[in-house]
Amino acid sequence: MSPNHIGELFEAALGGNRRALGKLLTMVEKQGSSAAMVSERAHRDAGQARVVGVTGAPGTGKSTITGQLAGASGASRPAILAIDPSSPLTGGAILGDRIRMDNHVGCGAFIRSMATRGHAGGLAVAVPDAVRVLDAAGCDPIIVETVGVGQVEVSIAAAADTTVVVVTPGWGDAVQANKAGLLEVADVFVVNKADRPDARGARRDLELMLDLGHRSRWRAPIVLTTATKAEGIDDLWAEIERHTAYLHDSGELIRRRGRRRRDEVADRIELELRDRVHQIVQGEPGEAALGRVDRNEISPAAAAELLLAALKPHNPPEG
Amino acid sequence: MSPNHIGELFEAALGGNRRALGKLLTMVEKQGSSAAMVSERAHRDAGQARVVGVTGAPGTGKSTITGQLAGASGASRPAILAIDPSSPLTGGAILGDRIRMDNHVGCGAFIRSMATRGHAGGLAVAVPDAVRVLDAAGCDPIIVETVGVGQVEVSIAAAADTTVVVVTPGWGDAVQANKAGLLEVADVFVVNKADRPDARGARRDLELMLDLGHRSRWRAPIVLTTATKAEGIDDLWAEIERHTAYLHDSGELIRRRGRRRRDEVADRIELELRDRVHQIVQGEPGEAALGRVDRNEISPAAAAELLLAALKPHNPPEG
Repeated sequence: MSPNHIGELFEAALGGNRRALGKLLTMVEKQGSSAAMVSERAHRDAGQARVVGVTGAPGTGKSTITGQLAGASGASRPAILAIDPSSPLTGGAILGDRIRMDNHVGCGAFIRSMATRGHAGGLAVAVPDAVRVLDAAGCDPIIVETVGVGQVEVSIAAAADTTVVVVTPGWGDAVQANKAGLLEVADVFVVNKADRPDARGARRDLELMLDLGHRSRWRAPIVLTTATKAEGIDDLWAEIERHTAYLHDSGELIRRRGRRRRDEVADRIELELRDRVHQIVQGEPGEAALGRVDRNEISPAAAAELLLAALKPHNPPEG
Repeated sequence: MSPNHIGELFEAALGGNRRALGKLLTMVEKQGSSAAMVSERAHRDAGQARVVGVTGAPGTGKSTITGQLAGASGASRPAILAIDPSSPLTGGAILGDRIRMDNHVGCGAFIRSMATRGHAGGLAVAVPDAVRVLDAAGCDPIIVETVGVGQVEVSIAAAADTTVVVVTPGWGDAVQANKAGLLEVADVFVVNKADRPDARGARRDLELMLDLGHRSRWRAPIVLTTATKAEGIDDLWAEIERHTAYLHDSGELIRRRGRRRRDEVADRIELELRDRVHQIVQGEPGEAALGRVDRNEISPAAAAELLLAALKPHNPPEG
């Protein structure tokens, strides 16, 4: 795909063309040869949108809340990027097919199982690229919703300006949230299904754990919602806006985005190296070394040592 | 640490010395300069032990079942390796401190939060090394228990001869197990808390999903247990033994172990590369490139490209 064509797609996307936006998102999801060009082009125009991460265990009502947040923001072009890196052993779906057509979601996108380049590591690159594309296309806010509370999901949701963690009274106590590392990444807590009798208990547990673990200048507020009745969503959006203001005033936004860019550089290097390793292991030297491991002549550690020596300093880019 | 000293530790561990075994396990957990020597030495003597992986969501009774399985095996030196890679943002504990002293667990070890080398990727290398050490020390069977059902946990539990997946009626339906990729890695299913009224329903759901998804020659049996009353554990061990016999007879054991060794080679290369990436990013060229990203002169992708060009073909090993 030519740079001109990509430029045209961006202009169309900026004008509200969903198909064009879907095409650009598909390119970064696939992380093929066009992805680098799309990423570079998006980088030039990005940096304006607020990025909100939403995470929590399955069944907490995250998706409903995410959809309602997009509405509550009052923005004309909010975007939802829903990411499900689970089911590691099966293939992924393509983003562009799954643009959500909700009325109030102007840029709404839906990503499922972005097992880009055959492994979850691809997400670490594809997600910031997708956010960048939505940003450059004029979407704001961009709500990144992850399914599940594994390490990958939590780190994706944490790579936002504001990270919202959704729990329910039924999900278990705050101890579970703490265990998954959620307490440390949450800027705003939501106790959803607040019409349940034990909602106050869940809130108290969270407060207690925040009392014990709270360190930075910002203390994560706890918002009670009942998403099925759309209750508490405006309060939640207000807390997100309050956090946005805090980020600006404290200088934390610049630090946070700087850290995110640095993490992305490391993730990109790692992904590229993984691909090279894959090539080495599947190539002739790999087969030879693995054959020796199979015959128990050398250990896996020794084989790795041998193959690392075969890693070239730089491969030309694909295509 | 000298090769002689490591040899002495192995001899002591083989003779039943828990302190010596603990020291060896700590070395591979830390993955420092002695780890390679320990790994090589263990590799020479390993390959005899049966390796059983046990996984499932928190609260399913996995740990109780794992402890009881060690007893039910009737073996004189069973080992338990319990791994908790959660809490990604905090540090880890050292294995050697946490040797379990259960009466019936001769080689019992307890690993928690093995965030080796500062990231969960270290587990992919430290766990096979720990299994190898236990194997070389004469432990058998080696039961590897993981806490949680994230991608990391599932892949660790799946790197066994026989993988046991524990669910409970209360945990949710089989759909959840399917989502986490558990259906694909399970050789034996356990429905624990079988005294609950919906236990049969959980079994039926699993059977149904196995009917739909089952492909290989081995169909995972479903065992009902009530671990709190030690009920069903002997049946579970019998199914594990039946699977062991199947692995031998079908030639699947050789294929499976071969695949595991190959995966380990790739994991080791990846871990080493990650360390190199870390060095590159934190070094002088890294700071220069990241500074340009901070000033928005270049994109993260362009910075990664620059730094990859700075990657040296091979670094000498540490020490």
